[in-house]
Amino acid sequence: MTPLITAFERSPDGGRGLARDMRVRWALEEVGQSYDVRLLSFGEMKEAAHRALHPFGQIPTYEDGDLALFESGAIVFHIAERHRALLPDDANARARAIAWMFAALDTVEPPIFERAIAAIIEREEPWFEHRQNVLAGNIRKRLDDLSNHLGDSDWLDGAFSAGDLLMVHVLLRLKGSDMLDEYPNLSAYVVRGEARPAFKRAFEAQLAAFAGKPSTGE
Amino acid sequence: MTPLITAFERSPDGGRGLARDMRVRWALEEVGQSYDVRLLSFGEMKEAAHRALHPFGQIPTYEDGDLALFESGAIVFHIAERHRALLPDDANARARAIAWMFAALDTVEPPIFERAIAAIIEREEPWFEHRQNVLAGNIRKRLDDLSNHLGDSDWLDGAFSAGDLLMVHVLLRLKGSDMLDEYPNLSAYVVRGEARPAFKRAFEAQLAAFAGKPSTGE
Repeated sequence: MTPLITAFERSPDGGRGLARDMRVRWALEEVGQSYDVRLLSFGEMKEAAHRALHPFGQIPTYEDGDLALFESGAIVFHIAERHRALLPDDANARARAIAWMFAALDTVEPPIFERAIAAIIEREEPWFEHRQNVLAGNIRKRLDDLSNHLGDSDWLDGAFSAGDLLMVHVLLRLKGSDMLDEYPNLSAYVVRGEARPAFKRAFEAQLAAFAGKPSTGE
Repeated sequence: MTPLITAFERSPDGGRGLARDMRVRWALEEVGQSYDVRLLSFGEMKEAAHRALHPFGQIPTYEDGDLALFESGAIVFHIAERHRALLPDDANARARAIAWMFAALDTVEPPIFERAIAAIIEREEPWFEHRQNVLAGNIRKRLDDLSNHLGDSDWLDGAFSAGDLLMVHVLLRLKGSDMLDEYPNLSAYVVRGEARPAFKRAFEAQLAAFAGKPSTGE
């Protein structure tokens, strides 16, 4: 069967590939698995039919035969585990790649996402700028450590893995910001991820969906 | 070999079991694996020796023979995968349990952790109360959905899994707050987790470490 994923009918990022379906599309492209997409309005995401798939009423979801999954990290992991192209074969290297998946989502993404949301919803608050600066400091702490770890390497731990896929996607939200530009090796890391043919195909597919064009990844 | 984990020398929570080593201790207890603990001061966590294990200078880490891991989610997953007691055998049920691991850490924990941190470090900020209320609203949104999903079930998806272990630990931070009390089924869910013998052993071990007593989990 062809897996079916869900995505925003109109992504709030205007097609910049920041929505979390992008991670799943990219993973599917990396392993050469075609997929179908169901686009959802914000209203549909909160309806019972979608909540049966995603208890928190979000995107993406993933359906394949009897299996229904939610959480982009879990979906990427499922794809990586099933196709064995995004995780190393060596047991220890595999465990470390999984650690980078969790690091991307639990340690690096929270301050980045928090600042992006605050930039929208706190714009009218008198303390807006002060808080944006505090959050930028939190992000820089993570980027300092990540940059030190990456050094001159192409990827976080040996060959490109699902850990890199999630980390590049998390960092993509900082693209064009001074913050990312301060770390040449991290900027180059993001560019390296974007240059992968699978990334490009996934990016075009999510952009086509945003523009109202057919959006299957086939 | 006996795995070695790291934990705070003096946990900022005063031994309430909220630090992330608790998750790893609990998982190890569930699968019946003894372990050793190295306690670290805040200074030691930021030193090069520890950063070689944890690029972001945090706890916990996990060492077992040639393998060194960081990120509590990844460590719990590694333990669950290796011992096959915290993940179902059925492939689809296993994938769903993993989805709940990611949901606990990526969807439910961020607003809870964010609010707890803000309650400490933003106390003097002009936005303190406003933001505490906003974050409480964000937490309630997650708890609404989680409570609706859990319903009358004991655990999130069939038998107790690593997904429940992480979710209970994430919710533990709300224990005694009005927010958790508003959801009787979630309060009961946390109590159910705390009642597990493995939880109790892990809790006692982290408390003993905080109190300066020997803290191995053997």
